[in-house]
Amino acid sequence: MRPEESLAVRKRLVERELGRVLAREDSPLFQAMRYAVLNGGKRFRPLLLFASGACFGARRRILLPFACALELIHNYSLIHDDLPAMDDDDFRRGQPSCHRAFGEDIALLAGDGLLTLAFEMMAGAAVPGELVGRKQEAIRSISRAAGVSGMIGGQFLDITLSPERLTEKTLEDLILRKTGALIVAAVEAGAVLGGARTPEKKCMVGFGRNVGLAFQVRDDILDSSREGVQKGPQRPDAVAFFGMDKARKKLKEFVHRAVACLDKASLRAEELRYLALSLLDLKAEAFHG
Amino acid sequence: MRPEESLAVRKRLVERELGRVLAREDSPLFQAMRYAVLNGGKRFRPLLLFASGACFGARRRILLPFACALELIHNYSLIHDDLPAMDDDDFRRGQPSCHRAFGEDIALLAGDGLLTLAFEMMAGAAVPGELVGRKQEAIRSISRAAGVSGMIGGQFLDITLSPERLTEKTLEDLILRKTGALIVAAVEAGAVLGGARTPEKKCMVGFGRNVGLAFQVRDDILDSSREGVQKGPQRPDAVAFFGMDKARKKLKEFVHRAVACLDKASLRAEELRYLALSLLDLKAEAFHG
Repeated sequence: MRPEESLAVRKRLVERELGRVLAREDSPLFQAMRYAVLNGGKRFRPLLLFASGACFGARRRILLPFACALELIHNYSLIHDDLPAMDDDDFRRGQPSCHRAFGEDIALLAGDGLLTLAFEMMAGAAVPGELVGRKQEAIRSISRAAGVSGMIGGQFLDITLSPERLTEKTLEDLILRKTGALIVAAVEAGAVLGGARTPEKKCMVGFGRNVGLAFQVRDDILDSSREGVQKGPQRPDAVAFFGMDKARKKLKEFVHRAVACLDKASLRAEELRYLALSLLDLKAEAFHG
Repeated sequence: MRPEESLAVRKRLVERELGRVLAREDSPLFQAMRYAVLNGGKRFRPLLLFASGACFGARRRILLPFACALELIHNYSLIHDDLPAMDDDDFRRGQPSCHRAFGEDIALLAGDGLLTLAFEMMAGAAVPGELVGRKQEAIRSISRAAGVSGMIGGQFLDITLSPERLTEKTLEDLILRKTGALIVAAVEAGAVLGGARTPEKKCMVGFGRNVGLAFQVRDDILDSSREGVQKGPQRPDAVAFFGMDKARKKLKEFVHRAVACLDKASLRAEELRYLALSLLDLKAEAFHG
């Protein structure tokens, strides 16, 4: 199977499982959660976890709850990020954002609910006794990445760092927290669940950091050329910082560095390579977003 | 040592540990998290967990990260609950609420941060190999209780149920989710970590449910007699529903049922008994709130 085919299979698997866990009730709270999650997201983080786990022989059934948890965490962060107190975005993926559709109170709770559900899924993941240690390490890695020293810390920098005082270093730091941390956790947790050794895990962290940087720079490039997309005022942005030409160069640089991490570890990682290289295509939308 | 003394020792232990984990950075994000957590809370849930764990011989060192996690989850829920989109409360424990002191955006992230930190602490809890299964069960119990079928589901009911359409059953259901779930999880997780058997865990669930009901009824009684406290409009409330006399009777009834659960299991549970009975005292504030 070609990488794009096996990734498409896993994408459907994740969507089915997300649909299943979000079907528990039919209250507006669950409607809001489903609205936010089951709306054509590209499932990039779950696919990274699957692709990384596959390098180390992890079984799909073991990876699935963690893949879903990553997607729930990603979507909770989008709901809260769109709220009036944060970015005040009326639209998300071409639809009214969650709080526009359900009200701010329900959207706030739906975000809280998705975050908690992510941990519920990971904590409840059934693994054979000998994999309990790996499971714990994966939960730890994902919770750290989602937390105050990772994604939430990055969102804090995003709303407080003034673009005028930005340096290349602070911009990279911000991206590595806001976007990179969860992407690193995805490939790290996949490797952990597959029983990777320390040097291989380090390789995955290097890969994930560069993919995270590439992902955000690409997102800023796409945003700046999309009609009708307005960034909140004063938010750090790679295109605004580097200019379009240098931003495109940076994107290539990060993608090639990511691939170099795989080569260095001599990993047969076709899906990871495919996901990284696909970031170079500014039109393809299959697995990003 | 009398129960109030041993509980006071544990309260200090929790506060010291909370202070330690929240000292990681000095950003406004962490300032807001410290402001919300280290403000004279009564640490009722952590103390319930310690008291329950003690019944089954659990070691304090094992219980501590879970005790802290409960308090972080409780405080995240207060921050989000106070936000303008929810209860719009300007004050909390006599101080400006978190969003009044730090702004809505920081308060939102501080809440998200506390919730994530709770899971980070539990996932990172160091336990001996033979206790890993108990650790997992405790995390699962707490995440379910905090989640959409527990506390968040209760908050959803709280903002959507119209008081006119309330019945005793729906009010109890609401309280059991909004307030009871985390209290049940506290005593359940303590029992689990101490290696309690199924009938003992069931007893703890019965105890926790009644303590949760008593806790909320007491809170509503205190709110209704406190000057300057305004409940959001149209929120279900035990005093408004039962009237003051019956609410006081209900409080006693729930406390006595809680104690009966302990008697039935023949547990030597002096601290749990003390915590439950202390809810009858409408002046004492030592371990509630």
